[in-house]
Amino acid sequence: MCSLPVSRQPLRRVAVTGGTHGNEMCGVYLAKHWLQAPGELQRPSFSAMPVLANPEATAACRRYMGRDLNRTCTLTFLNSTATPDDPYEVTRARELNQLLGPKGTDQAFDFILDLHNTTANTGVCLISEASHSSFNLHLCHYLQLQNPELPCRLLQYEPPGMETYSVESVSKNGIGLELGPQPQGVLRADLFSQMRTLVASTLDFIDLFNQGKAFPAFEIDIYRNLGSVDFPRTADGDLAGTVHPQLQDRDFEPLRPGEPIFKLFSGEDVLYKGNSVVYPVFINEAAYYEKHVAFLKSEKIRVSVPALPELTSSSTLVP
Amino acid sequence: MCSLPVSRQPLRRVAVTGGTHGNEMCGVYLAKHWLQAPGELQRPSFSAMPVLANPEATAACRRYMGRDLNRTCTLTFLNSTATPDDPYEVTRARELNQLLGPKGTDQAFDFILDLHNTTANTGVCLISEASHSSFNLHLCHYLQLQNPELPCRLLQYEPPGMETYSVESVSKNGIGLELGPQPQGVLRADLFSQMRTLVASTLDFIDLFNQGKAFPAFEIDIYRNLGSVDFPRTADGDLAGTVHPQLQDRDFEPLRPGEPIFKLFSGEDVLYKGNSVVYPVFINEAAYYEKHVAFLKSEKIRVSVPALPELTSSSTLVP
Repeated sequence: MCSLPVSRQPLRRVAVTGGTHGNEMCGVYLAKHWLQAPGELQRPSFSAMPVLANPEATAACRRYMGRDLNRTCTLTFLNSTATPDDPYEVTRARELNQLLGPKGTDQAFDFILDLHNTTANTGVCLISEASHSSFNLHLCHYLQLQNPELPCRLLQYEPPGMETYSVESVSKNGIGLELGPQPQGVLRADLFSQMRTLVASTLDFIDLFNQGKAFPAFEIDIYRNLGSVDFPRTADGDLAGTVHPQLQDRDFEPLRPGEPIFKLFSGEDVLYKGNSVVYPVFINEAAYYEKHVAFLKSEKIRVSVPALPELTSSSTLVP
Repeated sequence: MCSLPVSRQPLRRVAVTGGTHGNEMCGVYLAKHWLQAPGELQRPSFSAMPVLANPEATAACRRYMGRDLNRTCTLTFLNSTATPDDPYEVTRARELNQLLGPKGTDQAFDFILDLHNTTANTGVCLISEASHSSFNLHLCHYLQLQNPELPCRLLQYEPPGMETYSVESVSKNGIGLELGPQPQGVLRADLFSQMRTLVASTLDFIDLFNQGKAFPAFEIDIYRNLGSVDFPRTADGDLAGTVHPQLQDRDFEPLRPGEPIFKLFSGEDVLYKGNSVVYPVFINEAAYYEKHVAFLKSEKIRVSVPALPELTSSSTLVP
């Protein structure tokens, strides 16, 4: 995602992408539904475009066919010359870049909301890069106020390399919406309905911003990714145990030094050896086993978010 | 599974198979663990053999590579001539038939316990054919008595065709053990521990039987499969909705005529139109979407199980 300041223009070109991972079923079926009936995505100041991001993986009900699409939207992949050996997702990332980008240019979409599910007990988790904090933190705060029954947290995540790679990084601003727990390949009506509500609230927020509403300053707790912890493994790399029952399902709850994090198959406990309290996130997410991630560690920090001033009237005219 | 009467011989040749479906992680990792440390599977009268049933699907963390192994152990597949185009699971079924069968012969293993997970909220669910009811019902009753904290139910399931096809059908007797809910590709320590306990109790029961213990008659509620219900679908076969929130997670609870079973994406409810109470099982199991099964309907029936008499002393000698 490019490091642009908070937009001082209304966000007219907005996309809602589902099925970036083809077995995360809420986004898959919301995108498919809206492609048939897009009325829900219309607001006075814009109409969001639904996109089924990874149609082949969706048809196969798999996360991806060749490589993880949500790690493939780097400028390196997007701007390289196509070859017949490109994995499907590299080709698809270039198509999405044509549709929603080009990444890093003025022609790119203003905002992508990318929909995901996780097997972890995260509840509602927004994933945002620090460079987009202000606008996205106002969005998170708005979702909290509008949907008090759904705990909504924001995880600030910086890609470990030099380049951003997520689907929403193709647009000028964007955010990932994770909702869990839901097994891969399962569509739960309760989570489907929650995600639908959260998308509606997100579009409402953008519409209010576009219409010229100012949003006052506030304070909020956010979670900043500190890195990942792998499963305990045998000499040949296979699992030697799994997430401890005392940690399982406790996403965003404090983990203190000395508390158990893994239960080995031999019966022994593995304790957390860090020096300070951390807040685990994406605990026991199915798709992360292959990435050698049993959970992410995060720190909880209180941030003061400045007001989001109203747009000037010249830019808020409804098109 | 061949329709033999209850064994009057001790069960010496017993196998515990895991990873028949490569993304059902409790059985996968129990089998892998026991292949390294088989001591837990030893009893005075026998030693059970651990088998990783589908190694390629396990390596890929998929249910199957070419076709469902647990639908492939028919005599037709097992006895047909191998060809280079055979799906992996057809080849693997023949290997298992060499190892644990041949199916329908005196040389076959006495008992296969096949381990599965489901994304449905089944708790402990034994799957048995009617022809094996008596021994398996005594096993179910024993598991209930030994593990009162784990509700254990037996689902009687007859394959819809003429031939049995499950992995355990290769042996003279056998049973499937389902444990849920657990997402595909996730290993939960709580369910791993539960399955380990249930396998230990199953081996204890077989050992007691082998040692000459008699088991008295009892009455028990069992669930008999009545057929499946598909998801609501669009004209082109895609989902038009999913399992209703009021049915989700209610496996083995009564479903009455007129109660909701599906929530359409349009918002409407679909009601159950049957004439009598049924007991849904495998509600919203991920692997059954492709099989067009949203849930199985079952009837709850009370059965009287005759005593399992002690074996004669000549046959109970520890080898």
